[in-house]
Amino acid sequence: MIEYTTGRGEWANWIVAEKEFDVRDLAKYESIFALGNGYLGMRACTEESYPGQTRNSFVAGTFNRFDDKEVTELPNTADFLALELMLNGERFHLEKGTIHEYSRTLNLKNGELTRRIVWESAKQEKYELLFRRFVSMQDLHLIGMRVEIMPLTGKADVVIKSGIDGTMTNSGAQHFHEGDKKISDGVYLQMTATTTETSIDFAFNCTHRLWIDGSPVSPISKHSIKRRYLGTEMKVSLQQDERLVLEKTCSIHTSNDVDNQCQDLEQLKKASLSHLKQEAEKGYETLFAESARKWEEKWEAVPIKMTTDQGFDQLAIRFAQYHLAIMTPSHDSRISIGAKGLTGEGYKGHVFWDTEVFILPYFLFTDPSQARKLLEYRYHTLGGARLNAKRRGFQGAMYPWESAGTGEEETPEWGPVDVVTGTPTRIWTGLIEQHITSDVAYGVWQYYRTTGDREFMIRCGYEIIMETANFWASRLEWDEPSGRYHINDVIGPDEYKEHVNNNAFTNYMAHWNLLTAIRCHEELLQADKEQWEKIIERIGLAESPNHWAEKAARIYLPQPRQIDEVIPQDDTYLQLKTIDLSKYRNQAQVGLILDDYNMDQVSQMQVSKQADLLVLFYLLENQFPKRVKQANWNYFEPLTVHDSSLSLSTHCVLACDVGDRELAYRMFEQAARIDLGTNMKSSDEGIHTASIGGIWKSVVLGFGGVRSLDGKLRIDPCLPAAWETLEFPIYWQGDKLSVRIDKNVLQITNTTNRNEWVTLEVRGNVHTFKKTLRLDLSEGGAAVEYAN
Amino acid sequence: MIEYTTGRGEWANWIVAEKEFDVRDLAKYESIFALGNGYLGMRACTEESYPGQTRNSFVAGTFNRFDDKEVTELPNTADFLALELMLNGERFHLEKGTIHEYSRTLNLKNGELTRRIVWESAKQEKYELLFRRFVSMQDLHLIGMRVEIMPLTGKADVVIKSGIDGTMTNSGAQHFHEGDKKISDGVYLQMTATTTETSIDFAFNCTHRLWIDGSPVSPISKHSIKRRYLGTEMKVSLQQDERLVLEKTCSIHTSNDVDNQCQDLEQLKKASLSHLKQEAEKGYETLFAESARKWEEKWEAVPIKMTTDQGFDQLAIRFAQYHLAIMTPSHDSRISIGAKGLTGEGYKGHVFWDTEVFILPYFLFTDPSQARKLLEYRYHTLGGARLNAKRRGFQGAMYPWESAGTGEEETPEWGPVDVVTGTPTRIWTGLIEQHITSDVAYGVWQYYRTTGDREFMIRCGYEIIMETANFWASRLEWDEPSGRYHINDVIGPDEYKEHVNNNAFTNYMAHWNLLTAIRCHEELLQADKEQWEKIIERIGLAESPNHWAEKAARIYLPQPRQIDEVIPQDDTYLQLKTIDLSKYRNQAQVGLILDDYNMDQVSQMQVSKQADLLVLFYLLENQFPKRVKQANWNYFEPLTVHDSSLSLSTHCVLACDVGDRELAYRMFEQAARIDLGTNMKSSDEGIHTASIGGIWKSVVLGFGGVRSLDGKLRIDPCLPAAWETLEFPIYWQGDKLSVRIDKNVLQITNTTNRNEWVTLEVRGNVHTFKKTLRLDLSEGGAAVEYAN
Repeated sequence: MIEYTTGRGEWANWIVAEKEFDVRDLAKYESIFALGNGYLGMRACTEESYPGQTRNSFVAGTFNRFDDKEVTELPNTADFLALELMLNGERFHLEKGTIHEYSRTLNLKNGELTRRIVWESAKQEKYELLFRRFVSMQDLHLIGMRVEIMPLTGKADVVIKSGIDGTMTNSGAQHFHEGDKKISDGVYLQMTATTTETSIDFAFNCTHRLWIDGSPVSPISKHSIKRRYLGTEMKVSLQQDERLVLEKTCSIHTSNDVDNQCQDLEQLKKASLSHLKQEAEKGYETLFAESARKWEEKWEAVPIKMTTDQGFDQLAIRFAQYHLAIMTPSHDSRISIGAKGLTGEGYKGHVFWDTEVFILPYFLFTDPSQARKLLEYRYHTLGGARLNAKRRGFQGAMYPWESAGTGEEETPEWGPVDVVTGTPTRIWTGLIEQHITSDVAYGVWQYYRTTGDREFMIRCGYEIIMETANFWASRLEWDEPSGRYHINDVIGPDEYKEHVNNNAFTNYMAHWNLLTAIRCHEELLQADKEQWEKIIERIGLAESPNHWAEKAARIYLPQPRQIDEVIPQDDTYLQLKTIDLSKYRNQAQVGLILDDYNMDQVSQMQVSKQADLLVLFYLLENQFPKRVKQANWNYFEPLTVHDSSLSLSTHCVLACDVGDRELAYRMFEQAARIDLGTNMKSSDEGIHTASIGGIWKSVVLGFGGVRSLDGKLRIDPCLPAAWETLEFPIYWQGDKLSVRIDKNVLQITNTTNRNEWVTLEVRGNVHTFKKTLRLDLSEGGAAVEYAN
Repeated sequence: MIEYTTGRGEWANWIVAEKEFDVRDLAKYESIFALGNGYLGMRACTEESYPGQTRNSFVAGTFNRFDDKEVTELPNTADFLALELMLNGERFHLEKGTIHEYSRTLNLKNGELTRRIVWESAKQEKYELLFRRFVSMQDLHLIGMRVEIMPLTGKADVVIKSGIDGTMTNSGAQHFHEGDKKISDGVYLQMTATTTETSIDFAFNCTHRLWIDGSPVSPISKHSIKRRYLGTEMKVSLQQDERLVLEKTCSIHTSNDVDNQCQDLEQLKKASLSHLKQEAEKGYETLFAESARKWEEKWEAVPIKMTTDQGFDQLAIRFAQYHLAIMTPSHDSRISIGAKGLTGEGYKGHVFWDTEVFILPYFLFTDPSQARKLLEYRYHTLGGARLNAKRRGFQGAMYPWESAGTGEEETPEWGPVDVVTGTPTRIWTGLIEQHITSDVAYGVWQYYRTTGDREFMIRCGYEIIMETANFWASRLEWDEPSGRYHINDVIGPDEYKEHVNNNAFTNYMAHWNLLTAIRCHEELLQADKEQWEKIIERIGLAESPNHWAEKAARIYLPQPRQIDEVIPQDDTYLQLKTIDLSKYRNQAQVGLILDDYNMDQVSQMQVSKQADLLVLFYLLENQFPKRVKQANWNYFEPLTVHDSSLSLSTHCVLACDVGDRELAYRMFEQAARIDLGTNMKSSDEGIHTASIGGIWKSVVLGFGGVRSLDGKLRIDPCLPAAWETLEFPIYWQGDKLSVRIDKNVLQITNTTNRNEWVTLEVRGNVHTFKKTLRLDLSEGGAAVEYAN
């Protein structure tokens, strides 16, 4: 049972709690209670083991491929979290005996996972147990664990088996060569492992310390080294009501670490061990306090508050920010964010358009330097994208649908079984879901226009945008009858339509990409001739990119039908048959339609997996009149089964745009519950990072109405009835603005003391201010007060 | 709780039973209740999963190496046995709810594993469940499973998840490339996999059939294909007291199969699927009956009976014969028997001297053609043995301490942690435990002298014996001071003495090997000049092997000390310090001494892991007078901690030889309990195949007193007080003799109608007979009756 109201007082709306243990919910909590820091990610596995658990720990960016038949993925590293507790000879676990008290909580504010249990064994002996755990936000390599055990009804002989378990695999795929194992000074356990393809060395270290009622004890210890396992078994005897405290301090370092100064494995072993010794000495409380301080700084940087009776909404935005913090490798711009972050094997750690379209906006507006790093990742992988284009016979850079370490296409070729034919389905996205290339360019442009960071554009951005335009210029297909360029055989955002021609989203975004490249070209040429020459040479461009303009001008851009202003999603969608979708909409489970139809059949019906045109309306907002948006909303929303976690938040933002607050709020509530809600099966393979980004988008871009529209800031708030006020910060052109919205008033304070003018559009009116702006929304955004 | 008296009537002493479920005992029963047929071996994992389980299935001979740092091993194949049963939404497993009745039994006679449970769920719903399972002795590829479920207290919605789980690893090492998965006709599940190094294709097939109260039902089925997993979920609703029967028929085929007629993977897929379809159609009972008939034949061929109040003894010999049947790859002479058979990952499926010295005798005397196949394996791997010698700078063939597919040395270099230094221990056996080479030659000679099979000798045997002699001739080291050949820096059978010089066992056996090679050379030269020439060429022998004789004559053979007739085990043993060993002898756990001392320290004490000289007395029985045997028994037995499962049975046989029936019986009882006894931790990584062979040796060679002494049959019975009679068959020179022993009478009947004379020595007297011989043992073996 998941509970949202456990936090009281200062912890109100900061705590997500599991109030009852049910082994069937293991995977749910493993994902949503995951700990991490962008470098490390660990599913919230329990210390004791249960069938059906998935013990995953990942280090960002350490991709490896098991064999030639598989795609690269984040390897599941050795497990530290498993502890076997024998209490008077009985193995502690919750499927046996009686649970008198149970509570597991994730504290979003300080990143600590806590579990408190009063358990009665089958022998009718009662114990109080308290488990605590954190992954340090201060020291990326560090994991702290702490266990308290107190026998309540008599003496207890306690045996704790703990260690480093390197038998972990990714659903059976072993990514590591077995390494060295060593126990130093009788207490420091060290194991190494090396990835089989990419030869990344890992060093795992841990040590244990014990106290009884506050006094340090040395247990009777027995070490064991088995295959891929290094462990120690500690025996302690407790009197009734004596409290045993075990601290396990653990660390992971790799040769791929950006902060790694080691020349070789021997140095890595030495350095990581001496680091562990030093840190473990400090003790759990100190290490945890250091980490909690870092979390405090993070929360202070991006406070988002709403006045509402719906505490869940406040909790949900914090849950989103918590996961955004632990999924993002802010330490290393060679790495980006996988579709499940570091919380599960799902999508193998691969990076999708999710990052640029659904997650990047959060960082754009709250931490621009982090946004820049995510885009630097795309620059870092530009070589792979060029290779993809070349392999497919195109020019320029073709970003991969699924990206890992190099930017080469990593999408697997085969997916789950087709229920009709009984054979695996072909996955086409890697070949034909090509809009990712403009999505990346769009992310770059948005960053530039929101921050004004020209240095980044010269170093990375211009090249990405022009090289992706080169791809589209070569990708377009001339259609003689219509005298237009077509883009045939693609998948748009709506992945229930495979092999379509002229997907509107794809065509419009390609068009946008070409036009923006022309702008970049001109801008760079004027600003920095020397850099212009270098980039032009790198992207192999003839002197003037006239062909971009020629092609952009003649791309076929599907127009609204006269009859109802509906834009054809692609050449055939509107002619397909319709079926009753009520069985598949608003269901607890996604993908139900695939139980009844196979992909070929679904492709032949007017049913959409997720927002398609609506995403286009959101990205190229000013190109479409409100009337057209409304018409297409009316047409497509009822055909959308929201079988992608990307769908609801887009709809929420669009519902705000078309002014339907109630529907927007309903969509937000649904979107916020994709991971955090009570569907216990939705997050088994990891949380949905795009959906997590979407929660913030719904709040700030949807209800807050914030947009960066080609260099202009617009705020058109649209608070849901349930919220009295909404406060959030945004960065705009290097200034940090504090925004406060209530039913009638929008107040903006520039908290950066640069004394620069800020220009802002609200409800069609343009305002400029330096320090504070206060507008009356009931009067259509009329100015009430300026403080400059 | 393990019980031996469950079998009654015709099943008396045929059933081993687990009467109480305890999750801590999983590994014990997984090993001792394992099913198999020499091709396939499957640990007795429960259908439902528990933490700590080891789900192992192996196909004999399909060795693969994970990477260059590891040694080759038998890969753990996909699992069929796991079934998840959801009963009204609750997962069936025995750590939750209440167990009202529980019994799991292994029927040694028909090879069926059965489990009957009355279980009450946490919701207080009662169910009766019956699980049955067999691995076919008739069709090597076939596994039959059957589950009955009956709700006793109300209706039940039953969901069964079943499939083929290819995520299995060997303690984390994945040996397979993921293969294809397909469901045909909605009911036939097929998955393939290919070993990563050796490229052996595996095809796994299974299908399910269901009945309610005898009527076939088609459940609501939902298929799932995940990574390395292919499954189906079946839903059925039952009324109270309705009985659901599920049959799951499974098969495994590989491209390495000796009976495989397929050219490629596609053919293998097709052939294996059509085989499964055909077999599954027959149904569990028919398939099981076919397998049980094969078992019946096996038991009829080697009936061993004792009249005794100690039913356990009768059960123990059957347990041994059961495991000898399932461990032995009688279908394929390219394969031999691993130290754990096919029952666990221990020793990685590698073949040791265990096979020739501890297991071969059983087949020599009960199934000579099988004995020949085991020796053909050594001929098949002679090339690898030659390579080993060459690599080490020796001549001839040097058999590997651990052997797998090729005969090359497969012993790992590093073993478990050294508790003193905290670093892994170096494993020296692969380099210096060289007596294996003469052990193999000895096995060949024993086979020849027991069967008279000259065809085998010409084809394989002579070459092995002469080529191993070549090894020894090159291995001997001239010691100038003594004017003798020494063998320095070896490990003898007592592995607690590493790096010793002139281990008596090693020197005597090398001596024997050289002398026997000279005999072979002469014999072959006289019998078949043409073959002699071929072999001489193959083994690169100069015309006359005079150097063998020269070297044999001058090998240093340690002689009994004058003072006490003790033979020095090696050059230093008798000078080492002694310690009080009572802490380490007769303990439930083996290897305790290594908790207190490391190998270097143990090497410096008079303590033996296992029989050493005593094995020599057993192998070269006639070379040592009884007086010397007794003296050495008296000296070494108290120094032996029996930390090897090979030790006790040798001691039992020797105790018989020195006439101590009581001690012999005590040793037998201990040896018989190594796997079958109540030490629940002794067999975790698999059963001890040498110990299993040792049980038969103790009975027939020890108490039965049977020996094949260089072509002469000797029987000197020595029944323990607890046995009234003992009956067993033995093969001798192609004839099958039925032996019956009671306190005073030895009766032998030749059941082969060849009308040939059999010569037999009993208590020093030589008898010849054709049909029956009856001797009065109380009169020292005087003849009572002949029937010719």
